[in-house]
Amino acid sequence: VRTIKLTIAYDGGSYAGWQFQPDRPTIQATLEQAWNQVTGEHVRAIASGRTDAGVHALGQVVSIDTDTRLPAERLVAALTANLPADVAVVAACDARPGFHAIRDAIAKRYRYVIHDGDVRDVFRRNYAWHCHRRLDADAMHRAAQPLVGTHDFRSFESAWPSRESSVRTVSEITVRRLPHEPTIIHTEITADGFLYNMVRAIVGTLVEVGRGARDERWPAQALAAQDRSVAGPTAPPWGLFLLEVWYPAEAVALPSRAAAESVDG
Amino acid sequence: VRTIKLTIAYDGGSYAGWQFQPDRPTIQATLEQAWNQVTGEHVRAIASGRTDAGVHALGQVVSIDTDTRLPAERLVAALTANLPADVAVVAACDARPGFHAIRDAIAKRYRYVIHDGDVRDVFRRNYAWHCHRRLDADAMHRAAQPLVGTHDFRSFESAWPSRESSVRTVSEITVRRLPHEPTIIHTEITADGFLYNMVRAIVGTLVEVGRGARDERWPAQALAAQDRSVAGPTAPPWGLFLLEVWYPAEAVALPSRAAAESVDG
Repeated sequence: VRTIKLTIAYDGGSYAGWQFQPDRPTIQATLEQAWNQVTGEHVRAIASGRTDAGVHALGQVVSIDTDTRLPAERLVAALTANLPADVAVVAACDARPGFHAIRDAIAKRYRYVIHDGDVRDVFRRNYAWHCHRRLDADAMHRAAQPLVGTHDFRSFESAWPSRESSVRTVSEITVRRLPHEPTIIHTEITADGFLYNMVRAIVGTLVEVGRGARDERWPAQALAAQDRSVAGPTAPPWGLFLLEVWYPAEAVALPSRAAAESVDG
Repeated sequence: VRTIKLTIAYDGGSYAGWQFQPDRPTIQATLEQAWNQVTGEHVRAIASGRTDAGVHALGQVVSIDTDTRLPAERLVAALTANLPADVAVVAACDARPGFHAIRDAIAKRYRYVIHDGDVRDVFRRNYAWHCHRRLDADAMHRAAQPLVGTHDFRSFESAWPSRESSVRTVSEITVRRLPHEPTIIHTEITADGFLYNMVRAIVGTLVEVGRGARDERWPAQALAAQDRSVAGPTAPPWGLFLLEVWYPAEAVALPSRAAAESVDG
């Protein structure tokens, strides 16, 4: 068997999320159908994580076990040509057979986009959370830093407990106003894994600080409380983008390629 | 009678253009309906120009003659609250009674957005023309400069003659790749007026230069030919944005305000 690693982008606005659901449009079903049109195969596409309805991706990673002999580099154009305009394959490569987009993932980065201009931006209505009051992005950034590290994040998990453990390691959180677009704030969070709605709950909490309703110590206090009801509201899905997923080189690299690369080692 | 000057933004993707058409959604009908909901009045909204189906606006200007006593500054939020998410009122002010958004306009600026990355950008599918081949934006900029000035632009007018004269004065054309988004090219054209599809025909012509199919002198030659069939194709509507419309101060300013401002003159 052969395993392909795809990197895909999608506008989640018209989909009920990644995961297959009968009678509702999903990214998974859309991608599997395009694969079928290109190769004739019925495959199961496995994504690094299930994005919710309305959530977008710039760099979602998908693994597919296949018997097709099509070169990976041809799959980008062939699949994209068979996908609707709101889904695109950005990259495709052969991976080590058995590479698994969920199990092998070691880190992910999400971006959450906030627009805090006075008047709503008609072009961002599906791609940013519009906060009418101007936010203090620097205060949000400072307030977020205590969340970096290994913590029990159940205060920021919807429907806890949804996983065996709610301990995750956040390696970076940055909140910054874009220099060239002064009413746009990007919050980017990198972690080894994310709980259900974790980014949106963190952003909803930071916005309370940004609009001055809570002080900068509050997100750290909410984290320590280990109680979802203590933290802020869950930000809406349409501001959220899955940016990137990381894998260990040995999980992805083909044996032959890995061998070639280790000639000098 | 009182005249209000509105500045509005819209995503034209779901509309059959600005101008009212029976049984089709138009920006004009949408705005007039919101006005009716806010004031109870049936008014006629006059825009600086009729944008085509799919064309967007960041700063379309609209004049409305009205009897409402609502302060202009309250109209922004009140109208926007009654508009769909893809139309917004950005600014509102009292204008000199009789101010007319078409007749009084002295200049307009349009932007045309091109995306020339390899893979289509799912988030720009309705807001940029995707050119698969990387374009030479500097060559496009140089090729455009002979169009600046007062010329007969009938080579860039669809369905000529659609107006009495096809002579217009273009004061500026810039073509530039965005420093922070290296696969995006903005073409901005400022003129005292535009012929039907003029920006889209100029951009379609410049792209022929950008992709190397024509040399840099060709747009000037097409202009001189005064023949639409000599110039390039008409670029698609979804990359086009009406940015700004200019009026002489005396056409807009209220008599009282003009008097107040001239105290020191």
